[in-house]
Amino acid sequence: MKGMKRSHFCGDLSKKQVGEEVTLMGWVQRRRDHGGVIFVDLRDRFGIVQVVFNPEEGNQVFSVADELRKEYVISIKGKVRARPEGMINQELATGRIEIQAQDLHILDEAETPPFMIEDDVSAGEDLRLKHRYLDLRRKPMQDNIILRHKVKKAVRDYLDNNQFLEIETPILTKSTPEGARDFLVPSRISKGDFFALPQSPQLFKQLLMASGMERYFQIARCFRDEDLRADRQPEFTQIDMEMSFMKQEEIMELVEGMVQEIFAVADLEKPTEFPHISYQEAMERFGTDRPDARFGMELVDLSDIVADSEFNVFSGTVASGGQVKGINAKGCADFSRGQIDDLTDFVAVYGAKGLAWIKITEEGVNSQIAKFLSDEEIEEIIEKMEAKTGDLLLFVADNPKIVAASLGNLRLKLGQELDLIPEDEFNFLWVTDFPLVEWDDEAGRYVSLHHPFTNPKPEEIEKLEDNPEEVNAQAYDLVLNGIEVGGGSIRIHNSQLQKKVFDLLNMSEEEIEEKFGFLLEAFEYGTPPHGGIAFGLDRLVMLLAGLDTIRDVIAFPKTQSGTSPLTDAPSDVSHKQLDELGIEVEQEIELE
Amino acid sequence: MKGMKRSHFCGDLSKKQVGEEVTLMGWVQRRRDHGGVIFVDLRDRFGIVQVVFNPEEGNQVFSVADELRKEYVISIKGKVRARPEGMINQELATGRIEIQAQDLHILDEAETPPFMIEDDVSAGEDLRLKHRYLDLRRKPMQDNIILRHKVKKAVRDYLDNNQFLEIETPILTKSTPEGARDFLVPSRISKGDFFALPQSPQLFKQLLMASGMERYFQIARCFRDEDLRADRQPEFTQIDMEMSFMKQEEIMELVEGMVQEIFAVADLEKPTEFPHISYQEAMERFGTDRPDARFGMELVDLSDIVADSEFNVFSGTVASGGQVKGINAKGCADFSRGQIDDLTDFVAVYGAKGLAWIKITEEGVNSQIAKFLSDEEIEEIIEKMEAKTGDLLLFVADNPKIVAASLGNLRLKLGQELDLIPEDEFNFLWVTDFPLVEWDDEAGRYVSLHHPFTNPKPEEIEKLEDNPEEVNAQAYDLVLNGIEVGGGSIRIHNSQLQKKVFDLLNMSEEEIEEKFGFLLEAFEYGTPPHGGIAFGLDRLVMLLAGLDTIRDVIAFPKTQSGTSPLTDAPSDVSHKQLDELGIEVEQEIELE
Repeated sequence: MKGMKRSHFCGDLSKKQVGEEVTLMGWVQRRRDHGGVIFVDLRDRFGIVQVVFNPEEGNQVFSVADELRKEYVISIKGKVRARPEGMINQELATGRIEIQAQDLHILDEAETPPFMIEDDVSAGEDLRLKHRYLDLRRKPMQDNIILRHKVKKAVRDYLDNNQFLEIETPILTKSTPEGARDFLVPSRISKGDFFALPQSPQLFKQLLMASGMERYFQIARCFRDEDLRADRQPEFTQIDMEMSFMKQEEIMELVEGMVQEIFAVADLEKPTEFPHISYQEAMERFGTDRPDARFGMELVDLSDIVADSEFNVFSGTVASGGQVKGINAKGCADFSRGQIDDLTDFVAVYGAKGLAWIKITEEGVNSQIAKFLSDEEIEEIIEKMEAKTGDLLLFVADNPKIVAASLGNLRLKLGQELDLIPEDEFNFLWVTDFPLVEWDDEAGRYVSLHHPFTNPKPEEIEKLEDNPEEVNAQAYDLVLNGIEVGGGSIRIHNSQLQKKVFDLLNMSEEEIEEKFGFLLEAFEYGTPPHGGIAFGLDRLVMLLAGLDTIRDVIAFPKTQSGTSPLTDAPSDVSHKQLDELGIEVEQEIELE
Repeated sequence: MKGMKRSHFCGDLSKKQVGEEVTLMGWVQRRRDHGGVIFVDLRDRFGIVQVVFNPEEGNQVFSVADELRKEYVISIKGKVRARPEGMINQELATGRIEIQAQDLHILDEAETPPFMIEDDVSAGEDLRLKHRYLDLRRKPMQDNIILRHKVKKAVRDYLDNNQFLEIETPILTKSTPEGARDFLVPSRISKGDFFALPQSPQLFKQLLMASGMERYFQIARCFRDEDLRADRQPEFTQIDMEMSFMKQEEIMELVEGMVQEIFAVADLEKPTEFPHISYQEAMERFGTDRPDARFGMELVDLSDIVADSEFNVFSGTVASGGQVKGINAKGCADFSRGQIDDLTDFVAVYGAKGLAWIKITEEGVNSQIAKFLSDEEIEEIIEKMEAKTGDLLLFVADNPKIVAASLGNLRLKLGQELDLIPEDEFNFLWVTDFPLVEWDDEAGRYVSLHHPFTNPKPEEIEKLEDNPEEVNAQAYDLVLNGIEVGGGSIRIHNSQLQKKVFDLLNMSEEEIEEKFGFLLEAFEYGTPPHGGIAFGLDRLVMLLAGLDTIRDVIAFPKTQSGTSPLTDAPSDVSHKQLDELGIEVEQEIELE
């Protein structure tokens, strides 16, 4: 680097340094020639500053400056001077000064990048991912990475202050029971055997509680070999916590403090409200266990009103144990038939066989179903749904699951389309009192709503055998703007109870022993009551930054198909490598 | 937890709380009955406190106390009181007080553990690893984990203060070129292809420099599928750093500041001396590139003195380009023939064909080789080796590699056996000016001493083609007490030079393109000069804690054979899992 030593970052400079000689290093963001003078916007991670090359200052430097192109890496030495009044750039933090260059070295030349290094980029994501190192030069991407760093720092500081230890758990481990598919790693030393990459550090963090570590956390990499529909990554990062001797309320309070610190470093207003809502209430009011409570349009249960209605679709549903619920799309009475048909198609995806509607117009009630309902019923519906002239009431009659799914999602869709959701608002909600298990028709057995280590409410344990569906769990999810950012629970710490839950999930003795024998054994030697929570870091940072995809907050993400256009991973390996591992690729695949 | 809320940690209590009512939770370390009173040492992560159960306080609590056994988990409520003068336990931080218990709940019972939860443990390591959760309850192990946490925290704070960003790089990635064997992960979506677990984030951190992140770090998990002789783990943790626009000296200075912070949090005196030694000087004086400079006994080159000696073994070696060097084992003139034979066997392992010796005794020089050496030669040897009466001089004559390896290791062996090494001292050394490459006879080509991305010294680049072995690298290793704790270098940031080095290492165009094409392409778009370093965290914490194995500073390590006695990983997986991945275990293995 030609003996030059950087004296400042570009973004550090202000009127304070006027008159000082500085040495700067960075990238050429822009070059302009104006009146025989060359102006270069020099960019580093900390800002952009204008550098002026004047032919009078020395021909040699000026002629090197003449070679500069976008993204050249340079070092310059020069004097800071105030810009004349008329030349001040208010949009630039350093816009009141510029550097009069006296010396210049090109540290690296650059070809024209395949897309511009600017805040807005029109390049497709594939191109951006292939040249991720260029994409990451753009300020919005740098800001995302910096925010992610700050969030992790805030989490670590907060947890360190609260006596938590960050403890690393193995990446090469055993198949874990999170329900998703494991990534496997063939063992060379123990041929034919496989490690699994952890879906979460769940078992290890519980073992750490049995180890008396009392308060553990880890910003942990987790792995799930799932089909990558939606915004998922095969590897993702979790703020993983576990603590002993703390009750659910204490854990929630501690977590709220952490969230506040995170918001502080993200330069956002600290959230103060973390209301609690039970699973059941969430399902009833919002049709989902992760409600977006930034807007209303809640689900209203009309089953009582229409139970004896002459409208058979409604009364018949109620009679057979179903529900009739509605939402009030305020001001949408002018929706066309076609628009309502679209909504009907939308709810059909969630299993709804139809979408009844009532328009409240200046001329009175307008509806295909009005003729089947009594005036009294309509009046009660209008009253309960707080309907006013101009409103559109939408109804689904079905079993509770379908009603919740279809109206819950319809509510979200309408909320977005009608612009009811305040985008800048951060709305937190603790969802609690989840059922411990639910019946899975496909699997033909009970499955855990969280995971099999979740503690039932102590006063409901007795119902485990006969009415397991009525048992609630000591579980708590933190929902932000309708997205689950954290999921936690108090765990079982007793081997008898743990075995009982495994039984309930229809696991065989053999399976229990093979998968969880070591955990059950650990519980024999004095394990404290404990619980924890895990936050999806990627998702959390995404929400804080107001982004739509977690790929924008991960330095080197995979594509939707789980590959890296940058490194070309995964790729084929040599026969020697496979031989050493004692595995073979199936022939039909190899021949392709 | 019966509605009790912990008010203090055991270790928090002192005379300050006398008279206060406290609620404590933890493990029963010990129970004693004395004069009809039950004394329980209650342990949590923060300390141990004595709890007294008096029958007068209530029969119910007392009878529960009577059930307590070692490692039971309990909560107690009681009053802090000062112990009477005679009962003070000076060895306990809380030894001036005790808790008069008023309430007691058993939170979990415990079977008798397979080994005692005490500072010293006689159980074998296999048993300790199988019940790691019990081993980790022991205070020395907790201290190790806490130290590790503190070191990581100190590193993060220091680097954050220095504008570094912690950025996570992929775990599912592509085969990396660190020279060791990769762990592979079969891809399910792209059947027949494999991810590799990273041996280090080397390529990604360089890409991050091309991304303009300028200062990157990560406490990163790395993976090497090596045979686990010595104290290695298949997965280990690295403090990984990379920075742009900084010269070697600036990087070293920054790193020294970090090391000082690490020592501060480890409650050790901050090291102030970080002397530099060139690779060549280290090899000459210590026979190794990671010298333990806590003691002398340096290698002395006697080649000049014996070049024309009548002792053919010496003069012949020098004549054929070899060396004759010696070390002075001070005060060892009384070594027996058998002892010297053992030393001869020891150096034979490193290729030395013999070990000549001279004893300086009261009666004069005693040696089998004395008769072949002139008085003058002997005198010069004695003078150069600063030999005194009572010393034993040991010589190896061979090519420089064998001389260095055999005498370097002999020096270490004798240093230990003669107790010359001050165990509490922390001796740092920067080793610099490594050769860029060396010839590998086995591979029949040049290999990098560090890795292929290491920058040659700019003034020596011109020798790359004709005399590559004479080119020195801008590399720097940090050695602590003879163990390499950090290895770093300035990297190549220019694609032409990088290609030239790949060529020198005999890589084909195709191999270069396939493995490093994306790096070379990144270098085309303006990459800043950059360099970095990586610290072995496990080893560093081990040294700080004065331990012998990194397994003691890792919560859940693998055994020497790369398995986990705790979880039983690696283990076999179902055919369904392998089918989904499109791989098979070789038949002969499966049949075993």
